[in-house]
Amino acid sequence: MLKLGAKLTMIQSLLQPDEIKARVERLQKFMLQEDIAAFLVTQHVDLYYLTGSMQAGFAFVPAVGDSTFYVRRSLARARQESCLKVEPMPSLRVFRSQLEKDYPGLFASETPIRIATEMDVLPAQTYWKLAEVIADNGHENNNITTNSSTINNIKTSGTIAGNTSSPASCSLVDGSSLIRRVRMIKSAWEIGRIEAAAAVVAEALEAAAHVLKEGITELELMARIEYEIRIRGHIGVMRTRSYNMEVLTGMLGSGEAAAIPSAFDGPAGGRGLGPAAPQSVSRKPILRGEPILIDIGCCIDGYVIDQTRTAVIGSLPDDLASAYAYTEAIIRESEQLMRPGTACDALYAAALKHVDKVGLAEHFMGFGTDQVKFLGHGIGLEVDEWPVLARSFKDPLEPGMVLAIEPKFTFPGRGVVGIENTYLITDKGFRALTQSPEGLIIIP
Amino acid sequence: MLKLGAKLTMIQSLLQPDEIKARVERLQKFMLQEDIAAFLVTQHVDLYYLTGSMQAGFAFVPAVGDSTFYVRRSLARARQESCLKVEPMPSLRVFRSQLEKDYPGLFASETPIRIATEMDVLPAQTYWKLAEVIADNGHENNNITTNSSTINNIKTSGTIAGNTSSPASCSLVDGSSLIRRVRMIKSAWEIGRIEAAAAVVAEALEAAAHVLKEGITELELMARIEYEIRIRGHIGVMRTRSYNMEVLTGMLGSGEAAAIPSAFDGPAGGRGLGPAAPQSVSRKPILRGEPILIDIGCCIDGYVIDQTRTAVIGSLPDDLASAYAYTEAIIRESEQLMRPGTACDALYAAALKHVDKVGLAEHFMGFGTDQVKFLGHGIGLEVDEWPVLARSFKDPLEPGMVLAIEPKFTFPGRGVVGIENTYLITDKGFRALTQSPEGLIIIP
Repeated sequence: MLKLGAKLTMIQSLLQPDEIKARVERLQKFMLQEDIAAFLVTQHVDLYYLTGSMQAGFAFVPAVGDSTFYVRRSLARARQESCLKVEPMPSLRVFRSQLEKDYPGLFASETPIRIATEMDVLPAQTYWKLAEVIADNGHENNNITTNSSTINNIKTSGTIAGNTSSPASCSLVDGSSLIRRVRMIKSAWEIGRIEAAAAVVAEALEAAAHVLKEGITELELMARIEYEIRIRGHIGVMRTRSYNMEVLTGMLGSGEAAAIPSAFDGPAGGRGLGPAAPQSVSRKPILRGEPILIDIGCCIDGYVIDQTRTAVIGSLPDDLASAYAYTEAIIRESEQLMRPGTACDALYAAALKHVDKVGLAEHFMGFGTDQVKFLGHGIGLEVDEWPVLARSFKDPLEPGMVLAIEPKFTFPGRGVVGIENTYLITDKGFRALTQSPEGLIIIP
Repeated sequence: MLKLGAKLTMIQSLLQPDEIKARVERLQKFMLQEDIAAFLVTQHVDLYYLTGSMQAGFAFVPAVGDSTFYVRRSLARARQESCLKVEPMPSLRVFRSQLEKDYPGLFASETPIRIATEMDVLPAQTYWKLAEVIADNGHENNNITTNSSTINNIKTSGTIAGNTSSPASCSLVDGSSLIRRVRMIKSAWEIGRIEAAAAVVAEALEAAAHVLKEGITELELMARIEYEIRIRGHIGVMRTRSYNMEVLTGMLGSGEAAAIPSAFDGPAGGRGLGPAAPQSVSRKPILRGEPILIDIGCCIDGYVIDQTRTAVIGSLPDDLASAYAYTEAIIRESEQLMRPGTACDALYAAALKHVDKVGLAEHFMGFGTDQVKFLGHGIGLEVDEWPVLARSFKDPLEPGMVLAIEPKFTFPGRGVVGIENTYLITDKGFRALTQSPEGLIIIP
């Protein structure tokens, strides 16, 4: 079982200086447009994207000039991995003084400056600490952390030494959308990584398929698929950006268990293993004639793929087979629209029109009040990237976007059918990145 | 391979009303002490702890009276899982009005009221939205989200309807330490779940042991162990509370790869699969005579176990064998100190004294500048719970605390040796929850 065939995907993952340079420059362009003087990068995925390293620390990216990665640990490792300037992270109390030394021009500005950070992921407590130390809008809010607990190793009150010496008025502002917009357009290198992930998931699915027999539980089938993707280099998690969202390796569910709604912001939740793991697989045995939704992905070198195939042991009831065919039809229609210039919401609108026409609107992307309101989403280093194919996204598709499109129908008590492919938007149209063959997977 | 023996751990996980009631009451007691009028619970793990359900929404826990779980999705599922009052989550704009209707006494207070939330995990962006809607300290900070990006589906500006009608001055404050203190003391039910996880990891390690042979890669060994824990009900992740921290199933590393420092806030990082997954396993083959650190855990019904064993193919060099023996000696010394009343920092101090005496201080809990400054940590629903056995934790051990104690020595270029057991603090002393036998695992 531990022997792998020649198809084992071998991947080279050290980021080259040109790749990092291009990313930083694109961020800087947005920063100048938005009058942001600097970006303080805090999240590990954003750090990897902009520095080539996920070591612990903060990257400081000025709108003009060279960036610095201030690293707490491991400094030696960050220096091996990153082509940026890497310096030891000073104590937080003197971080502002250090920045003033390293970026004298920026902090000598006579007009107020704005430093952006990722407020969509940065915990409020860390935000307050940074605001107190770096910015001037932290002081008035000291009342925010007022617990007198003796078991409290994070203190935000006390004397702040960092910002008394500085002339520049400085505020921390939300740069989440800037960094999401930069990351939304993938480079050739990134597309290569997503393709490597697509190859792994396709191979793994094929390698695990033989265990899918009547009576095997959802958990057992998933464990085997996960084993096959892990051994090919899956890092163990598909990272997400949204608060409280967990994906891991996706969602696998059969029959009525797959149709159980969940908190998960996707078209299919699944029963899960209990109230503390209330999505994806359960211990339900897989039965003949029910749809088996295999919505899985993996993460190779930090980049994820996301795909769905539907399987059945025997055959599906006619109405579910028809519904599955509609999801392939929606994918084909989406492909017709996928080219630079098409508004993101147009793909969702077209799908809604389709499902309305075939009388399955109530079953589309979840059932009834548990429906989610999108057709697809960007993927890359995280599963929930931009753009989202939803009503609120009017922006046009652009070359370099990578989209997972996932039309699905939910039938309470019976199951979920659907398909999901990942696509790259190209100059003229699109290219499918998913490698698994389409079509209902039929096990005799 | 998919056939499991009779030892498969079957677990029942629906939380009983008495369990929830006791938890909520303990939180309310702390809230009264700290003059907190209500707790707005937002994080999925805290929601599960206090409501019995992880469905998406907010739980509102008043200092006095009954709690309400406001659920966005799935409402039906939350009603099945939770014994609290479950109501649909209204639009955020009218959330304050809804709270005023449901808790008229609380919001009619003539003195300012403080509502706590989990600022250690709540993203700043969500905090601002809640502060604008619920509290009165959100308005002055509208400048925090100023991006004019057209691709921005999270708006925090605009007319706020929720809090104009209310007389009570209300502020959002940090309640992280309150909830961490409540969760720090485990109930009998919780200890049962941790024991179930301990059984799973012990079984899995035994079931996977036969694949450990010279030349197998770290990744292959880990994939097999993960398969064995997954099939026994591991939910796929060991949850963490700290920003940017990922654990998944722990850390496995051999020889020099295990000794490579990382960003991970633990005594051993590991080489990992690349800069985007820079910890735990790599594709390095495991060699004869080098220490193999197997620091793994799993999550059953939401509860984690954390344990470490050291293995070797053949035998360890004498100095590493001695170092391993010292880690067992430190564990024995810790056991001597483990009883209610001992200060948490006393265990760490005793370990430091020990390693100083044997001349291995520089190797303890990481090497040199990459050392971490603790001996152990609380576990429960998350891997990084309170208390921490570190200098800053002066508080006494209490019955019901569950601690993972993990003395380890790092030898750069050679490997990491160590042991980790999980313990319950009892009325008179302690009880080991870890089930795997101690001692160096020797593969011929």
